[in-house]
Amino acid sequence: MTLTAPGSTETSPALQADSSAGGPVAPSPARGLVCRNCGATFGLIAEHACAECFGPLEVDYDPELMRAVSRELIESGPQNIWRYAALLPVGQDPADRVTLDPGMTPLVRADRLAAELGLTGGLWVKDDSANPTHSFKDRVVSLAATAAKRLGYSKIAAASTGNLANSVAAHAARVGLPSFVFIPSDLEPGKVVQSAVYGQTLVAVDGSYDDVNRLTSELAETDEFEDTAFVNQNVRPYYAEGSKTMGYEIAEQLGWRIPAQVVIPMASGSLLTKVDKAFRELVAAGIVEATEWRIFGAQSAGCDPIATAFDNGWDVVKPVKPTGIAKSLNIGNPADGPYALDAIRRTGGAVGRVDDAQIVQGIRDLARTTGVFAETAGGVTTAVLRQLVEDGRLDPAEETVILNTGEGLKTLDPLEPVVGPTHRVSPSLSSVRAAGLIG
Amino acid sequence: MTLTAPGSTETSPALQADSSAGGPVAPSPARGLVCRNCGATFGLIAEHACAECFGPLEVDYDPELMRAVSRELIESGPQNIWRYAALLPVGQDPADRVTLDPGMTPLVRADRLAAELGLTGGLWVKDDSANPTHSFKDRVVSLAATAAKRLGYSKIAAASTGNLANSVAAHAARVGLPSFVFIPSDLEPGKVVQSAVYGQTLVAVDGSYDDVNRLTSELAETDEFEDTAFVNQNVRPYYAEGSKTMGYEIAEQLGWRIPAQVVIPMASGSLLTKVDKAFRELVAAGIVEATEWRIFGAQSAGCDPIATAFDNGWDVVKPVKPTGIAKSLNIGNPADGPYALDAIRRTGGAVGRVDDAQIVQGIRDLARTTGVFAETAGGVTTAVLRQLVEDGRLDPAEETVILNTGEGLKTLDPLEPVVGPTHRVSPSLSSVRAAGLIG
Repeated sequence: MTLTAPGSTETSPALQADSSAGGPVAPSPARGLVCRNCGATFGLIAEHACAECFGPLEVDYDPELMRAVSRELIESGPQNIWRYAALLPVGQDPADRVTLDPGMTPLVRADRLAAELGLTGGLWVKDDSANPTHSFKDRVVSLAATAAKRLGYSKIAAASTGNLANSVAAHAARVGLPSFVFIPSDLEPGKVVQSAVYGQTLVAVDGSYDDVNRLTSELAETDEFEDTAFVNQNVRPYYAEGSKTMGYEIAEQLGWRIPAQVVIPMASGSLLTKVDKAFRELVAAGIVEATEWRIFGAQSAGCDPIATAFDNGWDVVKPVKPTGIAKSLNIGNPADGPYALDAIRRTGGAVGRVDDAQIVQGIRDLARTTGVFAETAGGVTTAVLRQLVEDGRLDPAEETVILNTGEGLKTLDPLEPVVGPTHRVSPSLSSVRAAGLIG
Repeated sequence: MTLTAPGSTETSPALQADSSAGGPVAPSPARGLVCRNCGATFGLIAEHACAECFGPLEVDYDPELMRAVSRELIESGPQNIWRYAALLPVGQDPADRVTLDPGMTPLVRADRLAAELGLTGGLWVKDDSANPTHSFKDRVVSLAATAAKRLGYSKIAAASTGNLANSVAAHAARVGLPSFVFIPSDLEPGKVVQSAVYGQTLVAVDGSYDDVNRLTSELAETDEFEDTAFVNQNVRPYYAEGSKTMGYEIAEQLGWRIPAQVVIPMASGSLLTKVDKAFRELVAAGIVEATEWRIFGAQSAGCDPIATAFDNGWDVVKPVKPTGIAKSLNIGNPADGPYALDAIRRTGGAVGRVDDAQIVQGIRDLARTTGVFAETAGGVTTAVLRQLVEDGRLDPAEETVILNTGEGLKTLDPLEPVVGPTHRVSPSLSSVRAAGLIG
């Protein structure tokens, strides 16, 4: 694979490949980018929009190279996303990787939650709070940063309100790569600390997340940021492929089997489309048996444009102004919404939406029955699972996997008013007795 | 192995071993408990203090069974602490385990921190923030809860100010085991939420941590808590063995080699003694080569009883009243202090102590150079590493491993006054230009 460098080809010393790693390196299966809208093809360039129709660009793979990948090859790899390097666009050579080595997060058997909901086919939680910065964003940032290096960029950047900011700054800190993270200035102090602690450039912008996003789009066009990869803008096609690894891992951790039903939270909708794509790729490569699966999407009522489009049978997604506590899902104009709708409809799935009270209850239900403490997005998924079961849209007799994409420690605020000590006592046996804990 | 049941032998259905797991199960190498003070031996009972001299009891292993353990056996096991089951007192049968499957956390190469400190022999961070509840306590609680089940207990309990509370409640939630966690009522709301979210019994006690601890000791003697295992009290000998796995993993992740120098934070001192014990066991079992290693202890200036004893050449540790931000290390009367001193002196190590400002700087240094965001205890260790290098007590030419025992997201408060955005702008290019980010 040859990636075309952007304007600036100067790279910092930290970005030079360590050729001392040696050993044989598998080829990348990526042969170019393809427009998901019009099908126009391009080289492996640093663009996310089609020059013909402005449609979104996606990585295009050589099917023969994909078919050459075996279970054994994957199983002989490291315990992280790079075990799937032969199915990814970049990172085949360990020396090329800019990464915290995320992935191979636990697939937790959720028997107690299954019993409560009446699910008899088996229920699992794919828990991405176990990633290095405790969200699934580590997967996409590892791909974006690695692609950025291969494309000749010397800096990385992102607009974010939380998980992405943490991950970009931590990746940059690990390898000594300059990074620029742009956040709305009214973020909670805790979230600011989580990104600022890595000692990278952190820019507070007086405006909404949409304002921040618009500003970074403008900055990407300036001379000063010519050598900067904005992880979910100019290297987005590579970035997005990181989400496929969550699908690969679910299948591998089930013993190389695709689950019948998967419930996935939706912000831009990208993660959902990539999990579906991962399953299709595994089937096409002959790595798993071709079984049927259904993909379900989860949104919060405060930001439900994909749910609304699904309910109304629309192919397009009408933007909304997001509200509500599931901030990591609050993308009002989801770039991959139409593609998410396609995957859901094609597989016979559905979309659920839940309000803030249900989200908090979802976090509590998951923690109480599995010991997994999810951020609000995980609460959305758990609450939507319950809703889908109650509505009869999810088959309780089929095996089901739900995705937890982030860590509860990052979104404590909505829980503070509703969870607390069950008893309060003085440090004496008589006080404990009065509280009813002992007779 | 036969474990002697306590008074009550009634077990809840959730605690019954699932005999359907089947397959051959390795024997436990534990043959009893032994007093570390007088050497008196006991069966595998639920006691932590010697009936002869009140000294601390420790698990005693059959050296022949330990020698039968091979690298291959370990490497064929799961990617968590249970790969070392043949070296642990309980949990050989997967159906017996009460666990979140912690362990096999990353050993992160810290080249950038090494370069800053002038370490040429190689530096690694063992990052236990990657455990399920994001601290090393998941290791010890998994051992304690599994032993509790084998000993016939039907409930688990703990006194804690943070990490232990999270871990006990999450373990209990995973398996549906009743638990009782006792915390000081003046804990920060965030820490209360982290333990309360699992929906277990959480008792706020109006008093200090010492008061809480005394209360749980009294409760352990009541009829109502006869069937309750207090994880670091009546099942402490089993609990403490969980820390050995951190030492095993370091050696395995280095390619079955013991590092020359290890820096370990000290609260009770137990973790330090168990890492040293793990290394000795690996040598005795013939799993690693017999090389020399030096164990270094790290304390905060606000709670430095072991450091003071070390500096003064004392064999006993004089209790102190803890202060300072490294709350997870604030044990003023460390139970394993004398044994930690012994391991440090026997191996030719040393003890460092750092104040709150140095601890915050340690957290920032580690995050900035490795992308690992540690809690205050990890800041202590990183700052002590710097001190030991500067004092010439740690050899910069020898390979060094430092232990991060917990997660920065749990102790954000001390960072809020000192880290924040590097720039603040309006959402316009002219404002970014005025801030000096572009020309």
